[in-house]
Amino acid sequence: MTMSDRTPEHFLWETDGRVAVIRLDRPERKNPLTFDSYAELRDTFRDLAYATDIDVVVLASNGGNFCSGGDVHDIIGPLVGMDMAGLLAFTRMTGDLVKAIIGCGKPVIAAVDGTCVGAGAILAMAADMRLATPEARTAFLFTRVGLAGCDMGACAILPRIIGQGRAAELLYTGRTMTAEEGERWGFWNRLTAAEDLDRAALELAHRLADGPTFAHGITKTQLNQEWSMSLEQAIEAEAQAQAICMQTRDFERAYSAFVDKQRPVFEGN
Amino acid sequence: MTMSDRTPEHFLWETDGRVAVIRLDRPERKNPLTFDSYAELRDTFRDLAYATDIDVVVLASNGGNFCSGGDVHDIIGPLVGMDMAGLLAFTRMTGDLVKAIIGCGKPVIAAVDGTCVGAGAILAMAADMRLATPEARTAFLFTRVGLAGCDMGACAILPRIIGQGRAAELLYTGRTMTAEEGERWGFWNRLTAAEDLDRAALELAHRLADGPTFAHGITKTQLNQEWSMSLEQAIEAEAQAQAICMQTRDFERAYSAFVDKQRPVFEGN
Amino acid sequence: MTMSDRTPEHFLWETDGRVAVIRLDRPERKNPLTFDSYAELRDTFRDLAYATDIDVVVLASNGGNFCSGGDVHDIIGPLVGMDMAGLLAFTRMTGDLVKAIIGCGKPVIAAVDGTCVGAGAILAMAADMRLATPEARTAFLFTRVGLAGCDMGACAILPRIIGQGRAAELLYTGRTMTAEEGERWGFWNRLTAAEDLDRAALELAHRLADGPTFAHGITKTQLNQEWSMSLEQAIEAEAQAQAICMQTRDFERAYSAFVDKQRPVFEGN
Repeated sequence: MTMSDRTPEHFLWETDGRVAVIRLDRPERKNPLTFDSYAELRDTFRDLAYATDIDVVVLASNGGNFCSGGDVHDIIGPLVGMDMAGLLAFTRMTGDLVKAIIGCGKPVIAAVDGTCVGAGAILAMAADMRLATPEARTAFLFTRVGLAGCDMGACAILPRIIGQGRAAELLYTGRTMTAEEGERWGFWNRLTAAEDLDRAALELAHRLADGPTFAHGITKTQLNQEWSMSLEQAIEAEAQAQAICMQTRDFERAYSAFVDKQRPVFEGN
Repeated sequence: MTMSDRTPEHFLWETDGRVAVIRLDRPERKNPLTFDSYAELRDTFRDLAYATDIDVVVLASNGGNFCSGGDVHDIIGPLVGMDMAGLLAFTRMTGDLVKAIIGCGKPVIAAVDGTCVGAGAILAMAADMRLATPEARTAFLFTRVGLAGCDMGACAILPRIIGQGRAAELLYTGRTMTAEEGERWGFWNRLTAAEDLDRAALELAHRLADGPTFAHGITKTQLNQEWSMSLEQAIEAEAQAQAICMQTRDFERAYSAFVDKQRPVFEGN
Repeated sequence: MTMSDRTPEHFLWETDGRVAVIRLDRPERKNPLTFDSYAELRDTFRDLAYATDIDVVVLASNGGNFCSGGDVHDIIGPLVGMDMAGLLAFTRMTGDLVKAIIGCGKPVIAAVDGTCVGAGAILAMAADMRLATPEARTAFLFTRVGLAGCDMGACAILPRIIGQGRAAELLYTGRTMTAEEGERWGFWNRLTAAEDLDRAALELAHRLADGPTFAHGITKTQLNQEWSMSLEQAIEAEAQAQAICMQTRDFERAYSAFVDKQRPVFEGN
């Protein structure tokens, strides 16, 4: 499947070589999610697992903000009073978006400026790596709308990124994590000035896209797959996974380039 | 069950609205634990799961110290020479205290000044959030009394809070973690001057008690329940848990308040 | 089994009391691993589980470097073009080295100066504690040779040490982690000047060797064993493990020394 020519209805989609850039596109409202954009994002990440022309995805900001989460009027309003079947269908759809991001087989980089709250904070959390500006304000604010912190995997994933105690505070209080805290705690891999954010994210994305992308897909699979394995199981799983990678031509290409004192050109197979 | 009128025998118990404050009460000995206080704490946290008048618990310090752990004369003495049945009954009782703290369904905040060692460090670790003073000295000193670092869940829980390498060092050496290290490593959520400690802990506790307490209970359950789930299982578990919260009236209250541009008043149902 | 008199063929082996020090020994090439040294290290750590004269192991540097990983000529060359049975036999052997380090029942301390890359970074990661110099340059550079980051357990173990987001970046990009980053992120327990590195590692090793070594072995077992347990299972496992330690004479020795206001002399039983 090729995806470069996609024209999604509910968010922006650009490609730069083998890198796709996704931006929510209601900047005047700080890019909230709607039922439609949730579903189209989920379907897009599901398709990305099969895309042959895209190797890395950047989830970028728009108009100085990343995402303001589920829209109060478009999403929260309809949910109030919905029956259990409808509610579970919704929470499963949002969870399916995170599963699709995790399962898409390609590295996902979040590039976050300004507001990054609610489901927006979850999107950043579900990425593999995260860049942000000093203006990034992140809040898992579910508690402020009367809900629990356990949204779309947050109680499992956030503690693994920033530690159990810090995650508990953010999820119980819904308070804003400053950009500086986020960097110090390991949520952000790096802070960069707003004017450099897109460039920095694309640079990282292209670095990965120029690498052994088949192997990157295996790295992503194992990072998520070994989550709940025992140590012994994880080590055996990696022995198998790495043996697979040793039969790729990229492994041979790297060796030949080294012997020839050249830079390897990887082809993802 | 109501608990505001409790008068425990082996520790102090105060309530401030829907917040309960527990303090060990042998300040002249830095508040050691005894067989009796262990058992009464375990029973109290078990009852808290059913308490209808308490929403948040603060484990506070007393006389400048939090807890000096199991008393050498009252606890370690009798254990030396005890048979295996007796020893296992004891280690299971202490483990049951941690299970009861984790299972009580209400956020627990540790407010730690001065000495916080042995089983005292475990109590702080078992809380959901932790505040401390710059004078807090924390040591998992089991190794210094000839025991292993695996006490009451420490080998599982401490690595998730501060990372595997730092936890290993503290558990193998029994050395003191300074307050500054603890903040930097994510053990302490925040440091605060000794004279502000109780106020800061109560402020945080009341903020949570004024929130959607039913949802807080679900957050606590999921933070602990998802520990050993796969990512996919955790995401599905959260879809179910959050759908439950979306049928609470607190969710509706938050939405109505938002529409009315007011602050929501949550009632925990 | 006694091991003090070992004379390994493929690395240096010294003992200092009950502490063994291992150094790879091709300093002119920054101490690469070979098929032979991999296998001999694996067998040595397997034997260490039964050694009665060694209590702690230091993995030390040599000539200003720790380890440059699998040798390009001696290892990567032969792997290119090897069939799947041969590749899996190799990746399982390297995984078995990590399993042997984890399973040897004695604390392992890495003392890292200079280059610490590829399988060398894995050796450091597999240790229980890690000291380094400000010159330590660590890279999980598998991606640079066309492979995945999932080597010898890295996708499972590294996230638990430094957090999921930081681990993902190091594993996807293969970039160098500076010594300062490593200390800040919890990979290094402490930085120390190069001229003090061996002394600091030996000091820590002797401190552990002078402690309750039977209990240290239980600490090591539980730190690794509880990895994928539920919280309730971990707490029960620790109740059993600690009850075992309470029947050691070291526990009694510590108590008697305390009563006598003396320093306990532990004997590891």
